[in-house]
Amino acid sequence: MAVSTQVKGNVLELIQEEDLIDLSRALIQIPSETGKERAVSEFLTGHLRELGFEARGYEAEPGRPTAVGRWPGAGGGPTLMLSAHLDTVFPEGTNVRVSRSGPVLKGPGISDDCRGLAVLLAVVRAMNRGAIETPGTITFVATVGEEGLGDLRGVKNLFNIEMKGRIDRFVSVDGAGSGITHVAVGSSRYRVAFKGPGGHSYGAFGIANPAHALGRAIAGIADLQVPRQPKTTFNVGRIGGGTSVNSIAFEAWMEVDMRSSDQAALTALDAAFLKTLDVALAEENERWGNKGRLTLEKTIVGSRPGGAVPADAPIVQAALSASRALGITPTIDEGSTDSNIAISLGVPAVTIDGGGEGTGAHSLAETFDATGSWRGTARAFLLAVALAHR
Amino acid sequence: MAVSTQVKGNVLELIQEEDLIDLSRALIQIPSETGKERAVSEFLTGHLRELGFEARGYEAEPGRPTAVGRWPGAGGGPTLMLSAHLDTVFPEGTNVRVSRSGPVLKGPGISDDCRGLAVLLAVVRAMNRGAIETPGTITFVATVGEEGLGDLRGVKNLFNIEMKGRIDRFVSVDGAGSGITHVAVGSSRYRVAFKGPGGHSYGAFGIANPAHALGRAIAGIADLQVPRQPKTTFNVGRIGGGTSVNSIAFEAWMEVDMRSSDQAALTALDAAFLKTLDVALAEENERWGNKGRLTLEKTIVGSRPGGAVPADAPIVQAALSASRALGITPTIDEGSTDSNIAISLGVPAVTIDGGGEGTGAHSLAETFDATGSWRGTARAFLLAVALAHR
Repeated sequence: MAVSTQVKGNVLELIQEEDLIDLSRALIQIPSETGKERAVSEFLTGHLRELGFEARGYEAEPGRPTAVGRWPGAGGGPTLMLSAHLDTVFPEGTNVRVSRSGPVLKGPGISDDCRGLAVLLAVVRAMNRGAIETPGTITFVATVGEEGLGDLRGVKNLFNIEMKGRIDRFVSVDGAGSGITHVAVGSSRYRVAFKGPGGHSYGAFGIANPAHALGRAIAGIADLQVPRQPKTTFNVGRIGGGTSVNSIAFEAWMEVDMRSSDQAALTALDAAFLKTLDVALAEENERWGNKGRLTLEKTIVGSRPGGAVPADAPIVQAALSASRALGITPTIDEGSTDSNIAISLGVPAVTIDGGGEGTGAHSLAETFDATGSWRGTARAFLLAVALAHR
Repeated sequence: MAVSTQVKGNVLELIQEEDLIDLSRALIQIPSETGKERAVSEFLTGHLRELGFEARGYEAEPGRPTAVGRWPGAGGGPTLMLSAHLDTVFPEGTNVRVSRSGPVLKGPGISDDCRGLAVLLAVVRAMNRGAIETPGTITFVATVGEEGLGDLRGVKNLFNIEMKGRIDRFVSVDGAGSGITHVAVGSSRYRVAFKGPGGHSYGAFGIANPAHALGRAIAGIADLQVPRQPKTTFNVGRIGGGTSVNSIAFEAWMEVDMRSSDQAALTALDAAFLKTLDVALAEENERWGNKGRLTLEKTIVGSRPGGAVPADAPIVQAALSASRALGITPTIDEGSTDSNIAISLGVPAVTIDGGGEGTGAHSLAETFDATGSWRGTARAFLLAVALAHR
């Protein structure tokens, strides 16, 4: 794949970068917190229809539609899904006024993932404007539930139910920058609670103590062994419980995050973690002869499969070629994105940054610097067109 | 000591129980949360002065005066301190309207320790009204800081500084009921925090984790060994820390309560607890080769010495005699009260209930049933007069 000056001129004409900046400003003002994506999804679906696409929402769960628009192929080519995510980490009511200083826009969500959505729509518009014909169909999707505890449920719904087995290649455009992510860091997240009757610290002493059981569990987790490569991690992120210093708590809880790009390592860690909980429960109950016997509640609050597309896989090479053609020197990254689902199912996938430069993702001071950002848009367009060919 | 019908008649005339109920209603409406005792203290000091006492406040700390009134003895007798505590667990703004249904008063603090204060003032009034002469001086005190994290600082200030070495006997009137407390349950309370740089659960993995260190510490505490007799207890009451499931916390903390009526057992437990913290800190730091090295902060938030006055000690026997004389069948209790300080210093001391019956101490639905409560008032009076003799 080579991009001549001619092609570059055509691409620039097709993508009209300045329009995207206006589009980002419009998108950011629509509430889009993870779990409350309906408004922004309907905006996207409407926009796709205006451009003549077959478009509709697929509800990952009630009121949370992933927006999907279909660009039918001429036939004989693979189906590509090109995605960006609709949701942000910012609750409704957040001040999302965008300020602009030269090429730099500032506002919460402006890069992650207003930029991805803008690039997605830019590709859509370019396909339309250029009347681009591809052998394969391109399915443009704007997903719900990519952030936080969203658990990738939008893309999971498409891969596991709505379009099961019908997606051959997958590209996600996520945030600003120039990177290419081909290693999918999987994660497993739990909320764990030990519960018991509780009571007065002195009067009721001699019964099992939920905070003590939790401590035993955390001590076990603290000594879990994990491989250095592929990098595998564990973290007790938040803990809580108890009402006063002189009361035996009736509940103590923790939130735990485990990650690896190696699904087998993640599965093994998960099993060791669960065993640690059971051992802690048994030890605390036995210490007190089962008086005030505790119970254990484990809730899975996130499960993202891990995996990797080899660096020499055609889809990674195509992304590198498109980058080089446009003068982009990409970083090669690992991360946890919508591509995790595709990769875990053996579907070739990469996540690409949307161009420009971003800072302060997930903070109220998030920025997007549009200097040269047309290269990122053009890369997504070229990659999409290339991947919809054989 | 015997109380004849004649004495009983005299006592009843002197104590005027119905006045005390009105006094309780007045007291409850004065803000008195632990740490904010000034208003109620000044009310008490003023009341003592009106009755002709030498009275003043002794500040345990600025703005927190313990009210003290002195009833000078004729000479040759021991000095008795008779106390009740000013502070309650209820913050200013709590609805302290008192409702009355027959002999039952309902309102937060009505028993603990409006009743104790009312009994204290009843004894003061009776001394005054009856022009009672005793060989020993009686020092009437209304203390600050008995509840919660108050750490007995009012009574500590009197015993350790203001009246150091000048108190021969001590009686505290605390709450409603008929009990006599001669075993002082000591306590040691800490707030413990492990702190480190924190970071992303995946990106920064490989540094020491404050939540993990805390878990190690709690696991150690959970296996501490304590004697059954004298009863010795430990409790991790509250825990917290962390900002999100996928962040390594920069702080994790706990509040710990340890108790015993045996000061040696409490001291040994305290030392074992502190060692557990140091071991946990070292283990977590070593696990990660001192990367993101953690620090440990230990703050003593309460220290109440424990001990016991023997059941056959004269002061306990005097309290039992006074009870029997008035037809009270007392329970013999252990507890953590202002008497802890006296007992720990070898000063004979008991805490007596103020008569009547109380329910729901420390709750908004606290009650005081004044049925027969004159017996409790009379017991305090008789005991005070008896203890101000040789």
